[in-house]
Amino acid sequence: MLTDCSHVQVEIALAEAKAEFKRFEIDLKNKPEWYAPKVNPASKVPAIAYGGPDVPPDQPSPESIKIAESLVLIEFVADLFPSASLLPSDPVLRAKARFFYDAVGTKYNPAYFSYVIRGDGSQEGLFKGIEELQALLPEKGYAVGDWSIADAAWTPFIARLLAALELDVGAYAVGEGPETLKTLLSDARFARFQQYWKDVSSRPSFTSTFDKEYIKSAFTKRFADIKRAQK
Amino acid sequence: MLTDCSHVQVEIALAEAKAEFKRFEIDLKNKPEWYAPKVNPASKVPAIAYGGPDVPPDQPSPESIKIAESLVLIEFVADLFPSASLLPSDPVLRAKARFFYDAVGTKYNPAYFSYVIRGDGSQEGLFKGIEELQALLPEKGYAVGDWSIADAAWTPFIARLLAALELDVGAYAVGEGPETLKTLLSDARFARFQQYWKDVSSRPSFTSTFDKEYIKSAFTKRFADIKRAQK
Repeated sequence: MLTDCSHVQVEIALAEAKAEFKRFEIDLKNKPEWYAPKVNPASKVPAIAYGGPDVPPDQPSPESIKIAESLVLIEFVADLFPSASLLPSDPVLRAKARFFYDAVGTKYNPAYFSYVIRGDGSQEGLFKGIEELQALLPEKGYAVGDWSIADAAWTPFIARLLAALELDVGAYAVGEGPETLKTLLSDARFARFQQYWKDVSSRPSFTSTFDKEYIKSAFTKRFADIKRAQK
Repeated sequence: MLTDCSHVQVEIALAEAKAEFKRFEIDLKNKPEWYAPKVNPASKVPAIAYGGPDVPPDQPSPESIKIAESLVLIEFVADLFPSASLLPSDPVLRAKARFFYDAVGTKYNPAYFSYVIRGDGSQEGLFKGIEELQALLPEKGYAVGDWSIADAAWTPFIARLLAALELDVGAYAVGEGPETLKTLLSDARFARFQQYWKDVSSRPSFTSTFDKEYIKSAFTKRFADIKRAQK
């Protein structure tokens, strides 16, 4: 689950909707045997068991509906709580929100994973990925003006990136993390990104779901023995 | 555009919505120079120019809104024409529809491209991809009961597959196409798929957008000089 931010996307959407739910963490490297047969045959997280009788989350009922895939789930949360307005009602803005969360998956994530996780990318590659998303933002506000599930899609991935850079853990050269972080948070090239990050990271839906200490310890463990590029 | 069924997904959705629109075909191998700057900077199809003044499609107005990405577009069409009910109103069924179109991209398409286009797959790999989608179908009807954009997402990809197999064009062994086709259309293993295909392919939204002769000629041209696996 370390690099899997997709469950946080859904938690942020649930927090914005003020949904009541029971949270159960699945360790994919050591998953409980009931998870695949009773919740998600693909053995992936996140998944939601919706409806059915009130049961402990580790004893899912066959009567609840099981839904998986994070982008499907954030749309599901938006549909379940229409009064929370997690998507705008205007079709054009809805399309822009969906184009944005699609771009998180196709433009930002590949750049992030390449640079931080796999080590086959570059700082400039990461910067370009962020610029592509930044270019989709309106002049101010969130991805489509008011907060939407498009923001839920990007926020946890930014949080992971910044945490990793601050700790200087990742597949890039030793010492490069803090330098990359400084550029991202102070260079004028990323001014719009910086304002966006202030906006999304100050929302209770983020602060209540982001566990920085956990991320730090998980990243540090993961990269303890990674082969780092030489400076 | 040969293997790009994504524009047909959108055309099917538009046909189901009985939307009025001007269609303009872009040859991506020889694309008009106005396409990237005026419509889609990513130079991909499909894209929709929505709103603005009434202009010829090859002279897009800066005042119209440009939207790209086929799955974003089929949702957009559903949002624009709520009375056409291209998605159910129930949140659970909407989630199932989205899970289904996601599975077209993650389960079916990789199997199809591997077997027919790239030649690094197998007949059994294709069969398994189809079974995965088949398993998501309810006992009868469409992907989520009534017809929805989930069906728009899969239909054109099935049509291309069956056309290619019938012609025996593709990256599989010579002669294997018709044999694979026969299995898909008559073996009991694919009974649910066969009924589904009858249902979706008899809808006017499919028959009015499917150009079999064009597909045949395009496939034949594409595979004329492909290195085919030996039988």
